[in-house]
Amino acid sequence: MREIKAGIVGAAGYAGGELLRLLLQHPNVSLQFAQSQSQAGKPVSDIHNDLLGELTISFTADASAEVDVIFLCAGHGKAREFLAANPVPSSTKIIDLSQDFRWNESTTGEVVETADKAFVYGLPELQREQIKEAQNIANPGCFATAMQLALLPLAKEGKLLQEVHISGITGSTGAGQALSPTSHFSWRTENVSTYKVMEHQHLREVGRTLKSLQTDEVPAIHFVPYRGPFARGIFITAYMATELSLDEAKQLYSTYYSGHPFTVISEKNPDLKQVVNTNKCVLHLQKHGKMLVVSSLIDNLLKGAAGQAVQNMNLIFGLQETNGLKLKASAF
Amino acid sequence: MREIKAGIVGAAGYAGGELLRLLLQHPNVSLQFAQSQSQAGKPVSDIHNDLLGELTISFTADASAEVDVIFLCAGHGKAREFLAANPVPSSTKIIDLSQDFRWNESTTGEVVETADKAFVYGLPELQREQIKEAQNIANPGCFATAMQLALLPLAKEGKLLQEVHISGITGSTGAGQALSPTSHFSWRTENVSTYKVMEHQHLREVGRTLKSLQTDEVPAIHFVPYRGPFARGIFITAYMATELSLDEAKQLYSTYYSGHPFTVISEKNPDLKQVVNTNKCVLHLQKHGKMLVVSSLIDNLLKGAAGQAVQNMNLIFGLQETNGLKLKASAF
Amino acid sequence: MREIKAGIVGAAGYAGGELLRLLLQHPNVSLQFAQSQSQAGKPVSDIHNDLLGELTISFTADASAEVDVIFLCAGHGKAREFLAANPVPSSTKIIDLSQDFRWNESTTGEVVETADKAFVYGLPELQREQIKEAQNIANPGCFATAMQLALLPLAKEGKLLQEVHISGITGSTGAGQALSPTSHFSWRTENVSTYKVMEHQHLREVGRTLKSLQTDEVPAIHFVPYRGPFARGIFITAYMATELSLDEAKQLYSTYYSGHPFTVISEKNPDLKQVVNTNKCVLHLQKHGKMLVVSSLIDNLLKGAAGQAVQNMNLIFGLQETNGLKLKASAF
Amino acid sequence: MREIKAGIVGAAGYAGGELLRLLLQHPNVSLQFAQSQSQAGKPVSDIHNDLLGELTISFTADASAEVDVIFLCAGHGKAREFLAANPVPSSTKIIDLSQDFRWNESTTGEVVETADKAFVYGLPELQREQIKEAQNIANPGCFATAMQLALLPLAKEGKLLQEVHISGITGSTGAGQALSPTSHFSWRTENVSTYKVMEHQHLREVGRTLKSLQTDEVPAIHFVPYRGPFARGIFITAYMATELSLDEAKQLYSTYYSGHPFTVISEKNPDLKQVVNTNKCVLHLQKHGKMLVVSSLIDNLLKGAAGQAVQNMNLIFGLQETNGLKLKASAF
Repeated sequence: MREIKAGIVGAAGYAGGELLRLLLQHPNVSLQFAQSQSQAGKPVSDIHNDLLGELTISFTADASAEVDVIFLCAGHGKAREFLAANPVPSSTKIIDLSQDFRWNESTTGEVVETADKAFVYGLPELQREQIKEAQNIANPGCFATAMQLALLPLAKEGKLLQEVHISGITGSTGAGQALSPTSHFSWRTENVSTYKVMEHQHLREVGRTLKSLQTDEVPAIHFVPYRGPFARGIFITAYMATELSLDEAKQLYSTYYSGHPFTVISEKNPDLKQVVNTNKCVLHLQKHGKMLVVSSLIDNLLKGAAGQAVQNMNLIFGLQETNGLKLKASAF
Repeated sequence: MREIKAGIVGAAGYAGGELLRLLLQHPNVSLQFAQSQSQAGKPVSDIHNDLLGELTISFTADASAEVDVIFLCAGHGKAREFLAANPVPSSTKIIDLSQDFRWNESTTGEVVETADKAFVYGLPELQREQIKEAQNIANPGCFATAMQLALLPLAKEGKLLQEVHISGITGSTGAGQALSPTSHFSWRTENVSTYKVMEHQHLREVGRTLKSLQTDEVPAIHFVPYRGPFARGIFITAYMATELSLDEAKQLYSTYYSGHPFTVISEKNPDLKQVVNTNKCVLHLQKHGKMLVVSSLIDNLLKGAAGQAVQNMNLIFGLQETNGLKLKASAF
Repeated sequence: MREIKAGIVGAAGYAGGELLRLLLQHPNVSLQFAQSQSQAGKPVSDIHNDLLGELTISFTADASAEVDVIFLCAGHGKAREFLAANPVPSSTKIIDLSQDFRWNESTTGEVVETADKAFVYGLPELQREQIKEAQNIANPGCFATAMQLALLPLAKEGKLLQEVHISGITGSTGAGQALSPTSHFSWRTENVSTYKVMEHQHLREVGRTLKSLQTDEVPAIHFVPYRGPFARGIFITAYMATELSLDEAKQLYSTYYSGHPFTVISEKNPDLKQVVNTNKCVLHLQKHGKMLVVSSLIDNLLKGAAGQAVQNMNLIFGLQETNGLKLKASAF
Repeated sequence: MREIKAGIVGAAGYAGGELLRLLLQHPNVSLQFAQSQSQAGKPVSDIHNDLLGELTISFTADASAEVDVIFLCAGHGKAREFLAANPVPSSTKIIDLSQDFRWNESTTGEVVETADKAFVYGLPELQREQIKEAQNIANPGCFATAMQLALLPLAKEGKLLQEVHISGITGSTGAGQALSPTSHFSWRTENVSTYKVMEHQHLREVGRTLKSLQTDEVPAIHFVPYRGPFARGIFITAYMATELSLDEAKQLYSTYYSGHPFTVISEKNPDLKQVVNTNKCVLHLQKHGKMLVVSSLIDNLLKGAAGQAVQNMNLIFGLQETNGLKLKASAF
């Protein structure tokens, strides 16, 4: 069985931790290092204490060991910095979980070229074939993943013609490990608020994808994001006027996603916990009057981050797309 | 000091319990009975156990004691039933918390007449003067209260001209005391789902109010309601295209609500817990491009139910509107 | 009606905020200042945003305005510092919520004398008469309050003869406003841990009280404190072997607490939320074999801090003990 | 690779659902049926909706298909009923998750014989060898598992000589799927209560095990169980006087558990979420004065139910003990 040597940069954060959990169980991966500037020298299980008894390695300051793939989980802006300071040989694939290489002001195409590296936007349901051939991957944002999976089939068929209205709610892990007033338990428990209303940065990568698919002008997307009192998951609801009937829309979505193992269409009204601790996206369609309503649910740390990164790794290395990603939902 | 004799029908439920808590502390109220069909004979503090040590009465089956005001908390459909079976003398004011008298298919006006009773829709910020003169009150729905307070100033000025998009999230107490799969703790904790998308019944009373204020046709309202993992509170976000600048909108809202003690406009981005366990509504306005975004936050059991009922009682009996309603927020 | 001029030092924290909420509604209090070193100059409602619309004052750096009573909410160690730097005239009562004056190594009595000040330990159910005559009050700790109320009647009768075993769980507000890993929402939600097992600092003030009541030697107290995934409240369970029958114990407790308005004995198995957002302590007694089991529930920020401080203020100034403390439970 | 045919009786409940999730991913198992009386005919993914897209089978009324192992998840009392009505051939192993065969009044040994069946108590850390040879397994209770793993090494060495004091807290899934007031979200969120104080039924199987290990009389165990506001997990803390030093105790525990893959000793103070969604038990030892304090943490649905059942199945069929049980912790 193929063994892939992998390293993680920024392994002490939330996305890095999830990646560790996944790679440790992955049948084809041999972890070479878990780098962390802030925690270097400490046992990994001191920080990710659920891993106690499963590994004995410590975080390293160094990330130069030779690997087949390096995952960058260092945070927005830090990926560029890391690559500038630590040249990665072209024989090593890079999968970056930050937004650093997700788009490029000067580019409208699907590949972001930066310095001597070209990054393919790593949404398998958008461009699996390009990912298989990619040298490097820019892993999508969490809200961006949920939104795109809700809209791709429409854009692909040029049916995204009216303004799109999206509301969505995210758990606290989306804000990462850093302590902040809105992630303080006493504040957040039983609480709700909005943030970045109409101005969420993920709209940028969503817009870019939609423009690449649809020749007609892509309509405005209005997005109201909420912070909710839960740790994991994203639930968004998008709606837009369309002439498609509900049956036509369902047909369109099920055709689009037929070969994609992680995106599932639910006939029943879904709830967030059915995707928590999985790499799935669950979609649900309704039609009310002229409005097609699409719900899209993911685990922000898995399909929205570390899980999708592993999915991309599987594709790049020619493995089964689901390897290491058949996860037991936490369910409760 | 004026003493008002009050009785509660359906006092064992959530709204009934909140009303009990409020009336027990109200400086002008003397509680005559707490009726409950299902709990008749049991001490009130056996069901609402936070009241242990504060009262010793038991629930009664009977609700015929003479009172100045009777609150109906029996649930939708039960208010009509109760009044049919238990004639209430016209000298007794009725404040009904169900939707039974909130509108009437054959009526577009502001008063619902049913049998021999006329009910005024009890939203003080809409029609305080009519409430003061009312014989009976139909207390608004919780989501309906939050939405109307977000939209009233615009409709009043005839500025509600473009489609309105609303998302909102409600705590579990909105679903009442009855056990159900979506209020089971193991399911609901850390979970999110939508329900009655685009078809929430409260849109009906909202539409009716807006039509009564604005001569131009009222635009469609699209509403995506979420269930969230928290017990108390409603947070809605409404937006619509408008030519009003942010300053003009703020001016309009602050003028409209200037004499209303419970509706407060926040310059800062608000969070739900600042209204939990209070009778307040906090509003917040933003402008993004052409869109005016209005957040509206209430405690569903207080401003959305029992608190507003007491506010209406205060108005009817000529008391200070805030009597018995200066509540300490739970804050955390 | 008597008007008491009050000031708060350290008003931007959790206990300070609760005190503000209480004093603003208190019928006999006129708030003179809300001091905060870190937030001086900011509107109070910017920090305690539930107070928006209820007050317009800002935090002050200064705490020298003449007042009848000054509450010190500045944190452990800071009360002594404050008093050293800011002489308080002897005509001003001091109520300190920190542990700085709760005991004194050189003292076994009930009054801690420090510098030129004498502090009475402010547990009304222990020594209401001394509090009425006190110049200054050392307000008890939250766990210490719950424990003492569970044990006082036994110690008073010299019946605390066997080792006492206590477990208890506290909400996150007990750890205050400071951001820390164990109060990070992503960590704390759905989580449980222990801390300071067998070594909680509150055992010290509990032991001191018990020694002052019982001539026989006071047995060891073993205490396992848990952190729980909720914001407000403390639930402790104490048990010890005793020859008292359940009826005798109940008689003893109900006699002891008969004149105390906030300590209530429940015949039913209690739950924490029945005291949350109130100044109550609910006690429940069971007997299993030789073991008497006493549960004791309080809101850590009210009966465990700010509420008890107001109760002490009421006693010192000769007011009704319950003034300003008849609070609506949040219940849900 | 060996393929084991498995069937589940009572597959629509919480333990049944977890078992389904585990068996679907298990490399050696082929699921033959998922029986449920109440849900027969419905797609499994209609009830366990996280399984949408992963299986298409429906619940059956029938459980007679030939299998190598049958798991009984039907609830206490129902296992005996099922076996009486549905003879299981002796060639089929039975793993019962109820308490029906965990002990026998007339038996002090380690095997419960009932009718024509003999059941071995399925705690691998107690008697792995007997389990390997077992025909049928009585899977331990959840609290019982946590307690025994905390005490086994002491009892094995005859060091359990003083009264044992245990407190513990369980999540809501421990109470199963049935709707009840104490599992209603509005009640349980942010709430705590105790239940079955000193009388929890699991003490029975714990006592039986300890008696089987230690020749000296086993001391009394006092247990205060709490219900907490979280869905998954059990955290217990046991303490008892002992002359063992902390180092001696740690040595004793690490020796005892050295060959056991799921029981891990933590040097750091542990927290519940490090075991949630895993089959692990984390133990932590402290010494305070004469008291040895042992914390023990498990996921009640995995190591406390379905996970341990699969562990037992692995042992019976000669598989690697960890097959299908290397689960990604949910961690947050």
